[in-house]
Amino acid sequence: MLKKIDHLGIAVRSLDEAVPYYEKALGLKCEHREEVHSQKVRTAFFAVGEVHLELLEPTDPESPIAKFLEKNPAGGIHHIAFGTDGIEAQLQQAAGAGVKLIHEKPFDGAGGKLVAFLHPKSTFGVLTEFCTPKPGATAQH
Amino acid sequence: MLKKIDHLGIAVRSLDEAVPYYEKALGLKCEHREEVHSQKVRTAFFAVGEVHLELLEPTDPESPIAKFLEKNPAGGIHHIAFGTDGIEAQLQQAAGAGVKLIHEKPFDGAGGKLVAFLHPKSTFGVLTEFCTPKPGATAQH
Repeated sequence: MLKKIDHLGIAVRSLDEAVPYYEKALGLKCEHREEVHSQKVRTAFFAVGEVHLELLEPTDPESPIAKFLEKNPAGGIHHIAFGTDGIEAQLQQAAGAGVKLIHEKPFDGAGGKLVAFLHPKSTFGVLTEFCTPKPGATAQH
Repeated sequence: MLKKIDHLGIAVRSLDEAVPYYEKALGLKCEHREEVHSQKVRTAFFAVGEVHLELLEPTDPESPIAKFLEKNPAGGIHHIAFGTDGIEAQLQQAAGAGVKLIHEKPFDGAGGKLVAFLHPKSTFGVLTEFCTPKPGATAQH
């Protein structure tokens, strides 16, 4: 079952411009920065209650975030990630309800998590991720 | 200070199509439906941990959600609402950091809350709301 919203992925053109907005205008604290080479992004994390905001800056024109920014030049919310304690069961439930999956099986994501995405054509325009801590991993954010 | 993400506003063309996705594919429970005449929308609420998902279907072509759907025909995340215990101080902090405000003062929103929006030109593409329970009000979702 879905326990919480684990994080919101927010596409930005520049962390150096956006991080000060989240810090000074919203009063949040940047906890962690990380470059994720597989996704061609640099990230910055902010906690708000039980949710993290994950700012995503592309490091390459072929990054999925670069493509999102072509359509949304100002930036915007790129995806929503639900935390679950049973990611395989959650994928099966979605598939059983007719949802197309991008990933049939979860794979290693950033921050020591197993992740999988649903296909946005099945999710009414909201790019949707399921994630769960990897057994034995220490959460990094 | 921002305590949590209170809700995410998600634009949909049809609650009758989208609610079954959230129920059957994601396993969430629709807690409450409400028509908000001032915003020309019908809404459906789902709790996920401490956050609510607020699905928004326009009831009129002049609804802000109808205009969002013109640009995003599949639907998508329309706004993020942060819960705060000091909405006026939060607005002052944002304005002091150079953020343009849509509302200088909070006003009555749905569900017995005081709300105010920041101008999206100042928020790196993310339409951002602050909200707080109205003194003496009983939360309706």
